[in-house]
Amino acid sequence: MFKKKHKYNIAVVGATGAVGRRMLTTLEERNFPVGQLSALASARSIGKKLPFKGGTIEVKQLTENSFVGVDFALFSAGSSISKKYAPIAVESGCVAIDNSSAWRMEKDIPLIVPEVNPSALGSKCGIIANPNCSTIQMVVALKPIHDQYRIRRVIVSTYQSVSGSGQKAIEELKQQSRDILDGKSIQKNVFPHQIAFNCLPHIDIFMENGYTKEEMKMVDETRKILGDSTIEISPTAVRVPVFYSHSESVNVETELPMEVDKVQNLLSSSPGIFLVDNPEESEYPLAVDACGKEGVFVGRVRRDLVRTNVLNFWVVSDNLLKGAASNAVQIAELALKRLEA
Amino acid sequence: MFKKKHKYNIAVVGATGAVGRRMLTTLEERNFPVGQLSALASARSIGKKLPFKGGTIEVKQLTENSFVGVDFALFSAGSSISKKYAPIAVESGCVAIDNSSAWRMEKDIPLIVPEVNPSALGSKCGIIANPNCSTIQMVVALKPIHDQYRIRRVIVSTYQSVSGSGQKAIEELKQQSRDILDGKSIQKNVFPHQIAFNCLPHIDIFMENGYTKEEMKMVDETRKILGDSTIEISPTAVRVPVFYSHSESVNVETELPMEVDKVQNLLSSSPGIFLVDNPEESEYPLAVDACGKEGVFVGRVRRDLVRTNVLNFWVVSDNLLKGAASNAVQIAELALKRLEA
Repeated sequence: MFKKKHKYNIAVVGATGAVGRRMLTTLEERNFPVGQLSALASARSIGKKLPFKGGTIEVKQLTENSFVGVDFALFSAGSSISKKYAPIAVESGCVAIDNSSAWRMEKDIPLIVPEVNPSALGSKCGIIANPNCSTIQMVVALKPIHDQYRIRRVIVSTYQSVSGSGQKAIEELKQQSRDILDGKSIQKNVFPHQIAFNCLPHIDIFMENGYTKEEMKMVDETRKILGDSTIEISPTAVRVPVFYSHSESVNVETELPMEVDKVQNLLSSSPGIFLVDNPEESEYPLAVDACGKEGVFVGRVRRDLVRTNVLNFWVVSDNLLKGAASNAVQIAELALKRLEA
Repeated sequence: MFKKKHKYNIAVVGATGAVGRRMLTTLEERNFPVGQLSALASARSIGKKLPFKGGTIEVKQLTENSFVGVDFALFSAGSSISKKYAPIAVESGCVAIDNSSAWRMEKDIPLIVPEVNPSALGSKCGIIANPNCSTIQMVVALKPIHDQYRIRRVIVSTYQSVSGSGQKAIEELKQQSRDILDGKSIQKNVFPHQIAFNCLPHIDIFMENGYTKEEMKMVDETRKILGDSTIEISPTAVRVPVFYSHSESVNVETELPMEVDKVQNLLSSSPGIFLVDNPEESEYPLAVDACGKEGVFVGRVRRDLVRTNVLNFWVVSDNLLKGAASNAVQIAELALKRLEA
């Protein structure tokens, strides 16, 4: 049984990873009422020290006993770890917020973006899934449009940063960039092809239908989050040589006609969205500007040249923050409110 | 009056630029019957030497007398130069093939992609316009689909390399990349924002309708080249930190339903197109692979998840070659055939 407290014990699973580290900073920055904090990882990270609230915390090994006395467990250590340990955490009385794809499409598992579908959380907080980064920023922008105009179809092409593939991918982009600038040959370890000064239309594995798993996540998760399985989505997911933040070119078709200025007003007054849309002054969302920020940035809102019910826009967000760590902490905040209510 | 000869005198206007240099190498590689070759540029390039057929040619200043005795003039020195000098070249008896946007949308000026609309050249060869790079590679891929299934609508997002903005843009991407890797602050001269490790949804100037001029070129030129003003096009043009070759994510809707394997066969048997579509083996078109090649590379051909008359694909081509220099030389070859006929 949940007990209201002043502070709550938190475990971060995968604390040494790119997302795990940002979970720690986000807990701190959002002033989450953290009591005891466990930074959990695999055996090889034991003893590593991670910064938290001016001091450091030591990384401990993840075991089946790691969740005793923990109130919220935030997972970001890959699907197989989540598959195994999230149920153990829940058994121990935790709310388990999972950033992997392990549980997202399970029927009874809520898949939550707090600005979009908080009510899908329900009252029982067991495992709660955090959507994929490319989905989160898109649905934050789509939600107000869907509510007002009813979305029928979305055609999206992504420009995704390498940090979505983890710290080694960041190092690979750095090293390849240096080597190419120096006229040296490059090494490929993380990506199947050169990522520096190149674009790869390939994120995650290919499915039988010719789409990648990343693309299918955008389809399935968007429908689940917006609670409408009739929305058509045609995605193309592309990795670009950018370190942080994903950009997306979105074409959205609605049932009702849209006026650009009304959509701009709607977006700028919607939670989590920052409208950056003054192209004459070269102001539009940019990956490098979104980096380190929690918001979803939307710009280049313009109507299709022919159809009054079709709109194009450009949406950018930090894939490690709103696309992962901040959304997870926001879910914890939402769950906390529900449990305290 | 045109006289058939063994060799033809050629002038390249803007010979020292990124496209101009490739016009010289393309004339050489395609074995165009070049007689006398004039490399023309502005006064500040006089005396520069450019490589051609194992030797060098000296750059001369462009003047109103530069076209006397010249048979084909290839222009790539910007719109204002083309606006002024292309008519002078034609007056002098030249066929003027213009890579700028100056003449493209003029009613009586043919806008030619030799694989797509050779018949639009007609028999009178005066000024012939070369389309924009982002348009050329797209229409080469769209043409066979349009012929077979009749295209109604295209939604395209581009991933365009910096070389489209010239040599200084290439240097800016190099320098910014180095500076960022070295933790230094960056200089911006060519692009309004950091281009290294970033994506800019901004190419050319913004129009009143919220689209950029680059995007509107894709709309207007595609319709003119395909000879069908009813085709709807919704473009988003984005500059990415890639040196050479543009990539495009294309969603195409046709009147008739399409089968993926039939479209793949159609594309691979169409002129100028190379199908690179074996995603299970991580084979798809890539900017770095297309660089230096004349072809248009198409892959990731897959049907929309719902609609049988909608297809997504990924198309890549070297923007300085097929997107500019090679297409111009191909136009010269086509004009030559017409004139010799």
